[in-house]
Amino acid sequence: MTIRTIIAATLALATSAQAAPDDRIAIAAKLRDTALASNPAWPLLVDLTDSVGQRLAGSEAEARGRAWAKAAMQKLGLVNIREEAFPITFWQRGQESARVLGSNHSLAITALGNSGATPAAGLTAPVACFDTLAALRAAPDAAVKGRIVFIDHRMTVTQDGSSYGINGGVRRAGPAVAAQKGAAAVMIRSLGTDHHRNPHTGSTSFPAGTPAIPAVALALPDAELVGRLCARGPVQVHLVSTPTSQPGQSANISGEIPGSVPGEIVVLGGHLDSWDIGQGVFDDGAGVAITLAAAATIKASGPQPRRTVRVVLWGSEEIGVVGGRAYGEAHKQENIVLAGESDFGADRVWRVESRVAATGLPLFSEIAAALAPLGVQPQPGNDSGGGADVGPLAALGSGVLELAQDGTRYFDYHHTPDDTLDKVDRAQLDQNVAAWTTAIWLAASDDRPLRTKP
Amino acid sequence: MTIRTIIAATLALATSAQAAPDDRIAIAAKLRDTALASNPAWPLLVDLTDSVGQRLAGSEAEARGRAWAKAAMQKLGLVNIREEAFPITFWQRGQESARVLGSNHSLAITALGNSGATPAAGLTAPVACFDTLAALRAAPDAAVKGRIVFIDHRMTVTQDGSSYGINGGVRRAGPAVAAQKGAAAVMIRSLGTDHHRNPHTGSTSFPAGTPAIPAVALALPDAELVGRLCARGPVQVHLVSTPTSQPGQSANISGEIPGSVPGEIVVLGGHLDSWDIGQGVFDDGAGVAITLAAAATIKASGPQPRRTVRVVLWGSEEIGVVGGRAYGEAHKQENIVLAGESDFGADRVWRVESRVAATGLPLFSEIAAALAPLGVQPQPGNDSGGGADVGPLAALGSGVLELAQDGTRYFDYHHTPDDTLDKVDRAQLDQNVAAWTTAIWLAASDDRPLRTKP
Repeated sequence: MTIRTIIAATLALATSAQAAPDDRIAIAAKLRDTALASNPAWPLLVDLTDSVGQRLAGSEAEARGRAWAKAAMQKLGLVNIREEAFPITFWQRGQESARVLGSNHSLAITALGNSGATPAAGLTAPVACFDTLAALRAAPDAAVKGRIVFIDHRMTVTQDGSSYGINGGVRRAGPAVAAQKGAAAVMIRSLGTDHHRNPHTGSTSFPAGTPAIPAVALALPDAELVGRLCARGPVQVHLVSTPTSQPGQSANISGEIPGSVPGEIVVLGGHLDSWDIGQGVFDDGAGVAITLAAAATIKASGPQPRRTVRVVLWGSEEIGVVGGRAYGEAHKQENIVLAGESDFGADRVWRVESRVAATGLPLFSEIAAALAPLGVQPQPGNDSGGGADVGPLAALGSGVLELAQDGTRYFDYHHTPDDTLDKVDRAQLDQNVAAWTTAIWLAASDDRPLRTKP
Repeated sequence: MTIRTIIAATLALATSAQAAPDDRIAIAAKLRDTALASNPAWPLLVDLTDSVGQRLAGSEAEARGRAWAKAAMQKLGLVNIREEAFPITFWQRGQESARVLGSNHSLAITALGNSGATPAAGLTAPVACFDTLAALRAAPDAAVKGRIVFIDHRMTVTQDGSSYGINGGVRRAGPAVAAQKGAAAVMIRSLGTDHHRNPHTGSTSFPAGTPAIPAVALALPDAELVGRLCARGPVQVHLVSTPTSQPGQSANISGEIPGSVPGEIVVLGGHLDSWDIGQGVFDDGAGVAITLAAAATIKASGPQPRRTVRVVLWGSEEIGVVGGRAYGEAHKQENIVLAGESDFGADRVWRVESRVAATGLPLFSEIAAALAPLGVQPQPGNDSGGGADVGPLAALGSGVLELAQDGTRYFDYHHTPDDTLDKVDRAQLDQNVAAWTTAIWLAASDDRPLRTKP
């Protein structure tokens, strides 16, 4: 099947399934082209990046990000702007350094979120080297106890980001597995696909009763060095990592375009918090800017939608999806018919995915047809997970819209110092805005049921 | 003219100019193919990188690099192994950090070699922003005095590395120009072509009477941030950079394949020292490994050459080309007929260049013909500069052989933390060894005069 045939088939589907007046479709095309031509996300993303910078969950910077978001929503004409606070554990990085004893190799490291601390002066221990998390799991405690565990588990490049799920256990569970075997600390090969001296941070977790030991990620060149040194003979490392945890607070921000018929809400958004070691651009300043820009385009250039369009900018996604969970809990009585999050960088949307009631599938055919000129293809099936922050809403029955972005280079920058503004391809950023504008307009101007649970 | 025509023309030239017995040429082809097939540089480069690591001029690590080099030479069968010490100023990096006041932007910086220090607690000053070095030169002292000068001068990608010469003034002279106008410190956009959070170090210098002020390079994403912030309004930066200088020592290492006719020497080599923030692989572990491997291939697989082949591994190239100057001074009475340095990474040789007496030009036609199958083209003219360390020898009359490497990505890694082993393309590394083996064999088996001065 050629791309042309697929598009033709999709268009035919859309036409046969079309329930709404023709002008909804015509307006969608107009809004899509307006968004493409007017580049509305770029100035938002530049301003968020330069005036606020990174926005670690719980930090003063995240609070400034919220102030920025409310001001931006007001300027863009959104109303009912709300800030909804929730408590979090505020984890903060301390000093970090690592070196190989008996050499002058210093290692590029970054502590993992929720990890524990070494003494201020650091700790020194022999390194126990494992190629994979499975090899660590299989090792006897005696091979691990008192050592710094190194896990060299590798991920690969995938367009759909599936490698992150498949390989993510090394970061999410690896430190706890090592701690349960008595390890002094853990170093993992970063969950990343680049080869720069930029380690990839991210959260880990320790189940109740398991000590939160120091856990860091090595940049890929450094992981490869340690791997080679392990093959040469015994390796000892001196590690310093002194993060702290304390009670803290974060919040979700939302703003609306009220619908003409009250009682049905379409949610789109991104997360405001970011990791502290970059500028929080790909993750997730881009999602914030894209979804704000999409709502602003509908507000400025379209008629009033039938359903309320609500932009939600979640807090504290990076450490535990706390904002998404708090949002689901606080809004479980609301009739949120559809929700989607942009949280996979700033590269082009290549696929539209759904999880909606059968009555909503014709809407997704319309969306796919309207997005086809942007190079977006429909994903067969109807089981999209949606973004992390919409998970709790989806579990409560909201329909899911996913505009999947091309992740080919996402894990080159994800959670690293390299997540900076210069990585953004402006044409692809604009394509994202056009895709969200189109899909959200079509969903908000429609009346077909979408929820998977009442 | 197609590549095929060029090669044919070159071969014709070589044939008509050929003065030496046919077996020299046949042996060159055999040695070239042996070098290509046997990958001799890679294990040397891995071992130097992993067992020694970075080798800052004057450091204990550079001394370990010399011990490694002597052991390697001995193992490869070179003789007359010498270590020739010379004094240097031992410049060492201290603490370094920079942040933009009133924000949470921290900047990725690295101090420039020979730069001065801030107080231990750092200094805070308004930033005076200049797009180019020329703009700084043109500015009145009042616009600079007491400020941190930021110079955003940009270089571009060039295959032949010419952009480094054209734009290098920003690093070499910029800090002194700012100091003479009363600046408190200097930050330059790195002389680099990547967009990673890896600042590019390198030497600067201050003429007698000019104070050595703190001078640092910003990674390109950080320079772009500062440039954008300058456009928004006043910027203040808190800068910490506490390098120190003290008397120190470095040395050159050499080893030989003695020639059958004493009294004529062909020199090839690289520099042993490196910057401290990477692993010293592209700059210049590769040159060390390539030239050692080339000599080893001639020693192991060729007949005894007529001229002595001498591998020289210079010390302290990065800070002031001190090793190259000391070598020229110490060996000015010797009959070094030809000298060449491999010091531009590990990517393929694409051009052969010369500066020799007219009697030596037919030899270079032979070399070009023998290198053509490796994709190497001759450079018209006869005015090669050679590498930094051969400059002093060339000034004394030694002929120059330059095997110019492709520099397209060289300034992505040059003088950064990213100068690590994973950047090496092994096929291109092997091509370098083959080119050096071939060219040095042809020069060393020949008797035509090459020196430009008696």
